[in-house]
Amino acid sequence: MTETARSATHPAASPLRVAAVQSNPQVGLVNKEANVAATLDQINKCASEGARLIVLPELAGTGYSFDTREEAYAHAEPVPAGPTCTQWIELAGRLDVYIVAGIAEIDGVHLYDSAVLIGPDGFIGAYRKTHLWNREKLLFTPGSAYPVFETRIGRIGLLICWDIWFPEVPRILTAQGADLICSVNNWVWTPPPLFDHAGNCMAGYLTMGASHVNSVPIIAANRVGEERGGTFLGCSVITGVNGWPSAGVADAEKEEILYADVDVVASRSAVVWSELNDLPRDRRVDLYDPLLGYTGGRPKVR
Amino acid sequence: MTETARSATHPAASPLRVAAVQSNPQVGLVNKEANVAATLDQINKCASEGARLIVLPELAGTGYSFDTREEAYAHAEPVPAGPTCTQWIELAGRLDVYIVAGIAEIDGVHLYDSAVLIGPDGFIGAYRKTHLWNREKLLFTPGSAYPVFETRIGRIGLLICWDIWFPEVPRILTAQGADLICSVNNWVWTPPPLFDHAGNCMAGYLTMGASHVNSVPIIAANRVGEERGGTFLGCSVITGVNGWPSAGVADAEKEEILYADVDVVASRSAVVWSELNDLPRDRRVDLYDPLLGYTGGRPKVR
Repeated sequence: MTETARSATHPAASPLRVAAVQSNPQVGLVNKEANVAATLDQINKCASEGARLIVLPELAGTGYSFDTREEAYAHAEPVPAGPTCTQWIELAGRLDVYIVAGIAEIDGVHLYDSAVLIGPDGFIGAYRKTHLWNREKLLFTPGSAYPVFETRIGRIGLLICWDIWFPEVPRILTAQGADLICSVNNWVWTPPPLFDHAGNCMAGYLTMGASHVNSVPIIAANRVGEERGGTFLGCSVITGVNGWPSAGVADAEKEEILYADVDVVASRSAVVWSELNDLPRDRRVDLYDPLLGYTGGRPKVR
Repeated sequence: MTETARSATHPAASPLRVAAVQSNPQVGLVNKEANVAATLDQINKCASEGARLIVLPELAGTGYSFDTREEAYAHAEPVPAGPTCTQWIELAGRLDVYIVAGIAEIDGVHLYDSAVLIGPDGFIGAYRKTHLWNREKLLFTPGSAYPVFETRIGRIGLLICWDIWFPEVPRILTAQGADLICSVNNWVWTPPPLFDHAGNCMAGYLTMGASHVNSVPIIAANRVGEERGGTFLGCSVITGVNGWPSAGVADAEKEEILYADVDVVASRSAVVWSELNDLPRDRRVDLYDPLLGYTGGRPKVR
């Protein structure tokens, strides 16, 4: 049954127009005001196109490539009291939209690579990236939880970039009832090739696979452009509950906004894999102990 | 660094030519002898092309779509004493090759959807499918372990078809030191579309993703053709340690054999994701408790 067919039978159906913003912020304090102003323009544009949930990339208001810890501190803001969040909150209220965006968060001495979720009534919550990439480890403290947020438009899980290399993360979010996952990214280099002949990158396929095996739409916003020698891969994508792209794959180099309609009815319906299969029930949690125990130790070969 | 560059520096390097056989057996006792004879022809052909490890599909000697439990009993054989295994063992010894193939196994009253691993010196071991698809649940007993087998050509993990929808399985196999994974399949219908414009199916992308995030080559053999109203999807693929296809994606409808060279040196080298990333060490096993606890119960929404 298609998502549309299901929705038609459900009075509680709430098809939701979502947007993934593929943007190009630039690091450096001198650029921050322009970066944040660009996010406000992008959010306004998405809302004018009817999007109710708008997803921006990781570190959308600051750029990514902080040279030093001091530079990261200089860019970071308290969440939600800082100036960037304050502007996003004001705009979400005015436009009656939900915003997910990456931000450099400061909390006491700690810096986090975070994603905030903001709604028409204000700040809802934040996720602090749990799997840190490369030099992020020298700047940020890793997060320690996978929250799923109940909102008027559904239950929303968040993940950030390198997290998608760990299939455990989308599994945990959907196990907690996430209706959709917002994936906030600055995808960079992976073991080559970076792209296939279809123009997709491996992170795009990881997103599709995670969406498919968890029967959950994923709205993945990545950035483009170059910054201090690093190149970002674009390829933003919005997947349906079946894992295939509903919008995108976006270009590798150009700024672009993707739109798609997702429906929480599809996320809350059992996917009819077959007459006798229900994927969550088919999980063999009785056999998955090694997932917890393994930390890179020596192989257990029989 | 490429796999080739690494190998050149390792005297213990043993590049291994592998083959994935995309075949078309037909269910029904009257066809069994011809099915098994076809596997022997395919194995001979692969060996003549230099393959040392030859992977055949799920239920390669019997076909898939047993109508009744009685019919499944009639096709099943003890492992490794039954006639099909006996012929595979004889041939592996004569050709000095390793064979992985799906078989209907009987052990007392139990039927298993199994994959056997056979080497030049005889039977090495079997894996019994742990995640059963659709009417398999009415025929087979699910397996209860994820063995990894030490062999002269490396450590080999096995999985069967629906298993790849559970990212837990390749994670567990590589956590135990698998150098390569043999994926033995009868891929059928998934939530549509079945194929994308690149001609790949979602199972192909799941294979690529599992290979990539676990830095392990996967040799995935699927079947083609129709059987009692079911259609199989082909799209066999052999991935490199980076997750991208080394051979394939194979055709959706035609019988075909894929060949590629894999190298256990690549599997045992730390993949240089970045200066500061080692994927297995980056796993947050301290946070993955929900993976074990979740069995489809009510959501824990914060």
